Amino acid sequence: MTNPTAAMLVIGDEILSGRTRDANMHHLAGQLTKAGIDLTEIRIVSDDAPAIVAAVKALSGRYSHVFTSGGIGPTHDDITADCIAAAFDAHIDVRDDARALLQAHYDKSGQELNTARLRMARIPDGAVLIDNPVSTAPGFSLQNVHVMAGVPSVFQAMVASILPTLTGGEPLLSQTLRVVRGEGDIAGPLGDFANRYPDLSVGSYPFQKDGVYGANLVVRGKDVNALDAAMAELARVFA
Amino acid sequence: MTNPTAAMLVIGDEILSGRTRDANMHHLAGQLTKAGIDLTEIRIVSDDAPAIVAAVKALSGRYSHVFTSGGIGPTHDDITADCIAAAFDAHIDVRDDARALLQAHYDKSGQELNTARLRMARIPDGAVLIDNPVSTAPGFSLQNVHVMAGVPSVFQAMVASILPTLTGGEPLLSQTLRVVRGEGDIAGPLGDFANRYPDLSVGSYPFQKDGVYGANLVVRGKDVNALDAAMAELARVFA
Repeated sequence: MTNPTAAMLVIGDEILSGRTRDANMHHLAGQLTKAGIDLTEIRIVSDDAPAIVAAVKALSGRYSHVFTSGGIGPTHDDITADCIAAAFDAHIDVRDDARALLQAHYDKSGQELNTARLRMARIPDGAVLIDNPVSTAPGFSLQNVHVMAGVPSVFQAMVASILPTLTGGEPLLSQTLRVVRGEGDIAGPLGDFANRYPDLSVGSYPFQKDGVYGANLVVRGKDVNALDAAMAELARVFA
Repeated sequence: MTNPTAAMLVIGDEILSGRTRDANMHHLAGQLTKAGIDLTEIRIVSDDAPAIVAAVKALSGRYSHVFTSGGIGPTHDDITADCIAAAFDAHIDVRDDARALLQAHYDKSGQELNTARLRMARIPDGAVLIDNPVSTAPGFSLQNVHVMAGVPSVFQAMVASILPTLTGGEPLLSQTLRVVRGEGDIAGPLGDFANRYPDLSVGSYPFQKDGVYGANLVVRGKDVNALDAAMAELARVFA
């Protein structure tokens, strides 16, 4: 059985300008791996409508799922919901179900549901809301695109809301052997090893610290017994 | 004058699987911003030849420069150089200039330039080598694609080698005002402010920590005087 595939689309000028580091990619990657959904591509684009629309179209056609982060708040630069609607040619406006969630939230906190906040209730027709237990303003899924906030605590809560509703596959397991030898010495026997295990994926991730050269050899696969057997052999090869 | 544009292509199974966090995007983003080259898109793809070739073709056609990281070491999963050659239909083999660099390096350290290490001298015809003062094995530029290592210390050294050779534009300057108010309260006046300064880019990056809601308001532009004047007004708006 092949696992479902996924792409992530990060909408974020602030990452492309070097102002901040993204925290959501690493979180989503780990969660999808556990769920048996293969994250195959990530794209980061700026807060530019044509770029967002083009990326959504390209990725949603190619992968089982697309997860987006960023651009669904109340400010003028929050344009993701409108871009998703445009990508699928869906009508978008303030939707009653989302408005009711926000109204209840702001009534409780004594704040006004003003025009800006109401922007967060703009949801495309046909979309299913994604629960936001942190700050109420919902994400949404339209077809195979899951639209989530950029603030890490909210992003993580939305991932926790949506993931159990998706059909996963077999989790990809991985084991790592750390070898303190230059990759040039490892490469020959490692290539032979990889050829002997065509059902496993074998990667070498070099490091270099304080003048010491080495590599983390990572073996990935879905069958725990095959993986254990391979790792035992790998340890013998580089003993 | 418009600045040159750039995309980054990260080749890395280990990031997509959630095993490691990428460290190179943030570094390159900061360096390009300083150099006046607008980083407009980042893609992360797995160690998969068709995916790498397709991304190189798409990005090199669209942007002034493409910077890649990862996949140029000596192991079986290092396939970037061959993919770049394929993307440009260029011949690739062990090249004398790269081999000479490696031979001198390994002679000095008393290590053997074996078949695996010689893989790092595979350079496409027509490419210009990128100096690697850390560990010798060179990167290369083929047309507008600059191919660099994934190990952060080496990546950074290669960026330092290549950037001074590229024509930059006017650096994009940015200033930040931190406002401890919910984005829903900020959004109206911020949108009006952004409309008054069409030559500046105005972004709101919300945060939420220990129950406190706020946003970093970031204004970007190339003219330091215009930026200073705008920031003074922004401070008055949210005083």
